Amino acid sequence: MISRTDCAAMDREDPMAATRNRFILPEGVIYLDGNSLGPAPKAVPARVARMIEREWGQNLITGWLADGWMEKPLALGDRVARLIGAGPGEVAVVDTTSINLFKLLASALRLRSERKVILSNRENFPTDLYMAQGLSDWLGQGHELRLVAEDEIAAAINEDVAVVMLTQTNFKTGRVLDMARITKAAHESGALTLWDLAHSAGAFRVDLDAANADFAVGCSYKYLNAGPGGPAFLFVAERHQAEAEQPLTGWLGHAAPFDFDIQFRPAEGIRRQVCSSPGVMGLVALEAALDVFDEVDLDQLRVKSNALCDLFIALVEERCADQGFTLVTPREAGLVEPLIRGSQVSFAHPEGYAIVQALIKRGVIGDFRDPDIMRFGFTPLYLGYRDVFDAVMHLQDVMENGEWDSPAFKIRAAVT
Amino acid sequence: MISRTDCAAMDREDPMAATRNRFILPEGVIYLDGNSLGPAPKAVPARVARMIEREWGQNLITGWLADGWMEKPLALGDRVARLIGAGPGEVAVVDTTSINLFKLLASALRLRSERKVILSNRENFPTDLYMAQGLSDWLGQGHELRLVAEDEIAAAINEDVAVVMLTQTNFKTGRVLDMARITKAAHESGALTLWDLAHSAGAFRVDLDAANADFAVGCSYKYLNAGPGGPAFLFVAERHQAEAEQPLTGWLGHAAPFDFDIQFRPAEGIRRQVCSSPGVMGLVALEAALDVFDEVDLDQLRVKSNALCDLFIALVEERCADQGFTLVTPREAGLVEPLIRGSQVSFAHPEGYAIVQALIKRGVIGDFRDPDIMRFGFTPLYLGYRDVFDAVMHLQDVMENGEWDSPAFKIRAAVT
Repeated sequence: MISRTDCAAMDREDPMAATRNRFILPEGVIYLDGNSLGPAPKAVPARVARMIEREWGQNLITGWLADGWMEKPLALGDRVARLIGAGPGEVAVVDTTSINLFKLLASALRLRSERKVILSNRENFPTDLYMAQGLSDWLGQGHELRLVAEDEIAAAINEDVAVVMLTQTNFKTGRVLDMARITKAAHESGALTLWDLAHSAGAFRVDLDAANADFAVGCSYKYLNAGPGGPAFLFVAERHQAEAEQPLTGWLGHAAPFDFDIQFRPAEGIRRQVCSSPGVMGLVALEAALDVFDEVDLDQLRVKSNALCDLFIALVEERCADQGFTLVTPREAGLVEPLIRGSQVSFAHPEGYAIVQALIKRGVIGDFRDPDIMRFGFTPLYLGYRDVFDAVMHLQDVMENGEWDSPAFKIRAAVT
Repeated sequence: MISRTDCAAMDREDPMAATRNRFILPEGVIYLDGNSLGPAPKAVPARVARMIEREWGQNLITGWLADGWMEKPLALGDRVARLIGAGPGEVAVVDTTSINLFKLLASALRLRSERKVILSNRENFPTDLYMAQGLSDWLGQGHELRLVAEDEIAAAINEDVAVVMLTQTNFKTGRVLDMARITKAAHESGALTLWDLAHSAGAFRVDLDAANADFAVGCSYKYLNAGPGGPAFLFVAERHQAEAEQPLTGWLGHAAPFDFDIQFRPAEGIRRQVCSSPGVMGLVALEAALDVFDEVDLDQLRVKSNALCDLFIALVEERCADQGFTLVTPREAGLVEPLIRGSQVSFAHPEGYAIVQALIKRGVIGDFRDPDIMRFGFTPLYLGYRDVFDAVMHLQDVMENGEWDSPAFKIRAAVT
């Protein structure tokens, strides 16, 4: 049996242990939901306060230049680029994940205008499918969103497919798709790829350029810890930037926004994907959140992520062996490409919803996804091995005491 | 001649004088650019800090329900509604002005699918025209953005026109279009109207429902003082809500977002115009900024706005009579509908750019818009009559000393 002493020894050896001090974490909480909303980095309140009181407060309108607000979408894009294997000028931090997906999907469809199929999988996060439906419907040119099962994606790529639109890490199962292999298959059929990195960016090293990916989007509020509804990002491979055009042609994507031409003319490079004045408060929060990553070795991050997830699986299987849990996440993680598992572990259980609520009552925050999936995110930045041990002890108690079997834990709230 | 003593007397009689204390205003600055970026309300730093440290910091993911984050787009929409003459459930605070314009323009075009013309004016803020161009181009159904001169709008409305898309208050001249009259003309021809309230909301009482307006958008970072790139809003008249559909169909516009259906099905009411997870930091900043308006009488606001603008015009014409300034803003303001002038005054001058820079050097912040327009915003919430007097004295000095005629003031920066 793995003991708490064993876990304490692992914590002592953990080269990333100090990073935990960079986060606000409530007393008595074991937070296993950083894959929904990362916790607040301690540097964020001061950075945002400085922006409000000193930059906005004292510099007023001149902050757009004096404090570099106008350049933040691209400057922060270059910082996110390091985490996702993109080059300088390939990433911008703007708008929301869904809206960025719309822009890049539109760009891809125009680059492959003779093809009509957007290929995705049924297990994709629904908002991505909805945005694709919205775009196809409105284009009115006979586009089709073709959905297949996750395992059939590569086989389903053919010469009808304009763009393969996938979320790299499945939000329910944590399974990671092989970006390089699928992108290669897409390119061999003349199709483009668009990757949603929502559960990838900051969870492990992504390598968009090595995979030869065409387009990508992602959010900052999960593993990047920039706060609820924080600004999203988008990636356009340099080779597509001159031709990638999209319909949300706002003034900050104009080649010369302050000329106030009446005719839109797209800016060069990634800038044409910017639309509106950026929300500066969200951008400076992300800035402070990315400072944490400046000290993180992404190889170390992956080693620890795998170790935490492996430990959780082993402990659940040891301590809750006969409680009806089925591992949904791939057992193998992968250390280098191709990765197989993200930084989460999901178990299915028929009473999953109530069990998750009983755990939350005890301060172990995970979440539940229909129909029966208990989802636990393991973020090496602020979780240790004893946290994993303690979480499983709580789970064992919840199961052995039948604590989940209470009416209070069975009322379904709108958001978990 | 109007004296500083006269202005001091007006300040003493000003029923809104105390509102100034609710804003952070730097020492030695007279801020006449609240029409570009409103100053920071003093309550914002504490409200945002509470959201970061207490809500996000302590409640983590549960903040979406526990702290009401999820409901803020509609709850804040109802608060903005009071300022723009809309009813409950007609306004949502989401995304950016440009993106909201895209959504509602798309909604309008679908409601009038047999018509192909978007009618606007050449003087409209360019990003609105760019978004219309982007949408028309991408729909590929022969839509046309037809641009006429501001004075020709009503006459140009005919049965080809699907939607009349206008900014109520001209960003350069401050002229206010007659919303009720133009909307009536549009409806008589079977067209819809879409109003951009960027320079209207918070500047004076807007009355969308009384004007029978169909759609509107606006921003929160000008007269609403919610900070740089703060969240935007949109309005859909209740009668159109069931049929208004738009292409940015993100998960939070779904009838049941947490069912994770693979097929989009729009929510009822204004909610279907919401797309993505909202940026909570920006929303709580707006919340604190709107608290200021809770104590503002909109009739008083208009009276003072007119008085400040009238005073500025009178003083410039008195003190700088032979300096080559030409009033661009309408001289008449209007106190009740139809309003003629917004809450700004613009003068044209061939050396306008350098003059504005010389004023900024002296702490009088206005802005410049090509080709020759000096633009000054007068916001009754934090400006007094002596501020107006002092600003004109600075202008007089700048002109009489030839201070503007310096190479340092002639280098054009990208943003002013």
